[in-house]
Amino acid sequence: MSILVVGSVAFDSIETPSGAVDHCLGGAATHFALAASYFTQVRVIAVVGEDFTPEHEAVLTRRGIDTRGIERAKGLSFHWTGSYTGSLNEAQTLGTDLNVFANFEPKIPDAYTDSEYLFLANIDPVLQARVRSQMSNVKMVCGDTMNYWIADHAANLAKVLSDLDVLLINDGEVRMLAGERNLVVGAEKVLSMGPKTLVVKHGEYGATAFFSNRSFSSTKISHPFRAPALPLAEVVDPTGAGDSFAGGFYGYLASQTELTPAVFRKAMFYGGVMGSFAVERFGTERLQNVTREEIDERFKLFMEISHLEGA
Amino acid sequence: MSILVVGSVAFDSIETPSGAVDHCLGGAATHFALAASYFTQVRVIAVVGEDFTPEHEAVLTRRGIDTRGIERAKGLSFHWTGSYTGSLNEAQTLGTDLNVFANFEPKIPDAYTDSEYLFLANIDPVLQARVRSQMSNVKMVCGDTMNYWIADHAANLAKVLSDLDVLLINDGEVRMLAGERNLVVGAEKVLSMGPKTLVVKHGEYGATAFFSNRSFSSTKISHPFRAPALPLAEVVDPTGAGDSFAGGFYGYLASQTELTPAVFRKAMFYGGVMGSFAVERFGTERLQNVTREEIDERFKLFMEISHLEGA
Repeated sequence: MSILVVGSVAFDSIETPSGAVDHCLGGAATHFALAASYFTQVRVIAVVGEDFTPEHEAVLTRRGIDTRGIERAKGLSFHWTGSYTGSLNEAQTLGTDLNVFANFEPKIPDAYTDSEYLFLANIDPVLQARVRSQMSNVKMVCGDTMNYWIADHAANLAKVLSDLDVLLINDGEVRMLAGERNLVVGAEKVLSMGPKTLVVKHGEYGATAFFSNRSFSSTKISHPFRAPALPLAEVVDPTGAGDSFAGGFYGYLASQTELTPAVFRKAMFYGGVMGSFAVERFGTERLQNVTREEIDERFKLFMEISHLEGA
Repeated sequence: MSILVVGSVAFDSIETPSGAVDHCLGGAATHFALAASYFTQVRVIAVVGEDFTPEHEAVLTRRGIDTRGIERAKGLSFHWTGSYTGSLNEAQTLGTDLNVFANFEPKIPDAYTDSEYLFLANIDPVLQARVRSQMSNVKMVCGDTMNYWIADHAANLAKVLSDLDVLLINDGEVRMLAGERNLVVGAEKVLSMGPKTLVVKHGEYGATAFFSNRSFSSTKISHPFRAPALPLAEVVDPTGAGDSFAGGFYGYLASQTELTPAVFRKAMFYGGVMGSFAVERFGTERLQNVTREEIDERFKLFMEISHLEGA
């Protein structure tokens, strides 16, 4: 089934201990769409500038991603400059040039309106809510956000949260949103804001899902679920790892006919799998060229490293 | 089979966001022995002062722990004062009164010499090596250490590491010992120093085992293994969590007739289980009163939170 994602398609200039790249294709929607494309059909809503060439678009279309919702505007695309020095867990933002993204007004093509899964990548919650209201018939809504919106746009964000099936954020964002240091207590507070399920990304330590009693229609699970991350000898570029996790997670969910606890757990593993590929190369390079066989092989490896009886 | 543990039996004065306790029974050997006592016979070598009463000893003997190796000396027992403010992941040491521990000379009672498993808790590596050399016929040696010995007693520590079956330390200690930020690269360096297997404790994120090709006689496993920690709404007192992990882990290993990869993985889970109990109350209170039924129940919960098909 189809996923509609709204978010940034951008250019990233990144420095990590492994090297540096200038203006490589990036953005949350790009990483998400590429990761999800190995599981299901993905449609993108974004805005780009005149520096977004047919070669850039081909990166998406080669993976079968529908780009009809990517609007072209006069000017330059969103450009992020960041560096990872010391810790690979947190980027230092050196520059954020919004460019055409500053006036982004998401428009949903008619061809997209039958999408059954909606992903609201990390953008202004006002825009997230606007897209959500135009897609009232979707089967599931999953969303992301970040510290900037939590701190300064709380009321707008609260509206988005009140209507989410799954919120995907990291440890620090849970603590900030809940105003609470303990992750379990914080997760309960976040679930009380609306999301039926909360997935907390822990970077190199994997991810934990917390479920409200509204998470699944058929089964109630009262305890969380933890998925591992793959210990990696080299993380070339962590940029987009969280969006790639979201793409693998949501892409797998959308490919299944029924949402059961077992399907949800597998989706968490596929999230980790796609995140582990994303960080192997700069930008989206690895996500463009991974194969379904490699994905299945790595899924088995995730079983091996976490299950008592192995894969 | 019997485990011989050498380490500290001490008194702890602890402040955490949940409250404070003064001079409660603590020490690495105490936490380790109590946790391991649910799985196998444990024998302790330590030194205590005149403030260690029959009531304190009964805490150990009630759990069937052999205390004949606990030497009484004139003076006061080792006393540690610490507080956890803000983060529960790291204690701030406010005072370390070594007292009788300053002149600790481990003596192995004759009745202990047939012990098959040796645990070298975090003490001066010179003493760890001395005990090791007197127990040359043991089946397995597992050890712990800390930043103090890594930084200032490297040569003595190297001797201990060269002869360990399992080294159990935390993330920060791996990075410090290896001089390397990446955990996988760091783990490889630590394994090259001697330990056949390295278990890295991640606190609230669980633990990861890294295996050298000398880990198991029968099977080679080339990838690491990750065990979860239980997400807890309240951590009353993290003191001794790592030692309790070690006790659950090693106690289970010692209770099994054969060391296979599957047994090792289960041991990692039992480590997490005992760590999760330890932090529920101050000091060793919870470890004194847990039941084997509660342990088995929580083991099932660890399966539920980490396995695709649940327990």
